[in-house]
Amino acid sequence: MKALSFDLFGTAVDWRGGIARESAGFLRRIGRDDIDPAGFADAWRARYQPAMARVRGGERTFVVLDVLHREMLEDTLRHHGLDPAAIGEAALANWTRAWHRLDPWPDAAAGLARLRARFPLVTLSNGNIALVVALSRRAGLTWDAVLGAEVLRTYKPDPRAYIGTAAALGLAPGELTHVAAHHSDLAAARAAGLGTAFVHRPMEYGGAPAPDAHLAQHWDVATDSLEALADALGC
Amino acid sequence: MKALSFDLFGTAVDWRGGIARESAGFLRRIGRDDIDPAGFADAWRARYQPAMARVRGGERTFVVLDVLHREMLEDTLRHHGLDPAAIGEAALANWTRAWHRLDPWPDAAAGLARLRARFPLVTLSNGNIALVVALSRRAGLTWDAVLGAEVLRTYKPDPRAYIGTAAALGLAPGELTHVAAHHSDLAAARAAGLGTAFVHRPMEYGGAPAPDAHLAQHWDVATDSLEALADALGC
Repeated sequence: MKALSFDLFGTAVDWRGGIARESAGFLRRIGRDDIDPAGFADAWRARYQPAMARVRGGERTFVVLDVLHREMLEDTLRHHGLDPAAIGEAALANWTRAWHRLDPWPDAAAGLARLRARFPLVTLSNGNIALVVALSRRAGLTWDAVLGAEVLRTYKPDPRAYIGTAAALGLAPGELTHVAAHHSDLAAARAAGLGTAFVHRPMEYGGAPAPDAHLAQHWDVATDSLEALADALGC
Repeated sequence: MKALSFDLFGTAVDWRGGIARESAGFLRRIGRDDIDPAGFADAWRARYQPAMARVRGGERTFVVLDVLHREMLEDTLRHHGLDPAAIGEAALANWTRAWHRLDPWPDAAAGLARLRARFPLVTLSNGNIALVVALSRRAGLTWDAVLGAEVLRTYKPDPRAYIGTAAALGLAPGELTHVAAHHSDLAAARAAGLGTAFVHRPMEYGGAPAPDAHLAQHWDVATDSLEALADALGC
């Protein structure tokens, strides 16, 4: 193990809590505080895999996640009977940037700082560079490089995202260990030859079961926080 | 000004001193300590622009700087009457990685830390990701993202390297200020629409005049260290 790559949404930051908090404010401003903001967050996120699948499948050329998030937001609004055009460009752009303002899990900044003292740490997220930079600065998360979807021009779980991230670091796939809270992400990382470290985040879906629970395997390392991962790796 | 991009070789780190120091060791091991190591460093670096020009001109598809550095090393050795094959793969690979082990200028780490407290900082170097990550960890330089040649698949001074770096940060070119010790680099950054900050490094060429001195302009900011740049920007 020569370096660690990290998933972000759900692994290092609480996307559901952040999107619900931000959406509550926007929904209130448009007079729709009858809509449950956590449910709105789930509905927005539910459009994530289908949006990326069109890019991975070659049906659409690569566009960054900020673009997909905006389209997914507009679709979610229409699903709730709201007209995006009536909300206005500035509010839609700002609402989309809610993904730049997610809070870290309480152990993330301290755990990453300990891990980074020993290993190079890179992001291997589907988030685009501007999103990851803004989110990480706000959350106090420090990386050695921001890799992942935008740099590789493809979305996880495309094996090229994992193999390409190792290659950019001058590493064979087996020299890079991927850290994620999602069995689906780790299954793809393992299939691409990477090491795997699972971080259990039972509150990612507000306590509801994870949609990929059936993909659980025996991972190389399994912990319930990034501080515990630092312990497990002797950092 | 919403973010700062940085040249590395000469601006943040002393490439000539590091390459001369490392080459002195390798030359001694092959029984050629009659060759001046600083002159060897200059000869190696002299092959830098021609090697990149073939990529920029489309004569060759993009390859990372580690690959060019290796080819340039072998050419420099042959120029000194040495046969690369006789030196062996392991020593050649390690000698090439001398570019991963350059020392920072004395003001670099402290200056960057002050600047990063206020602005997102990214590399906009021709160095590849593995090189920049290794060099920065060793030198204690922390960035918000490693951008530049490998991410943009082209070498400075191609305008796409500058414009693409701003775009990856979600910025218009004028919202990004490029920091460099080289008038040639800043001239290209300005032509691409970026702001410019010059850092005078009189010892980059061991006290000899810079080869691009004739390209000097009145830059937006001009200082003689990264600490002084932090002062100038109120950090």
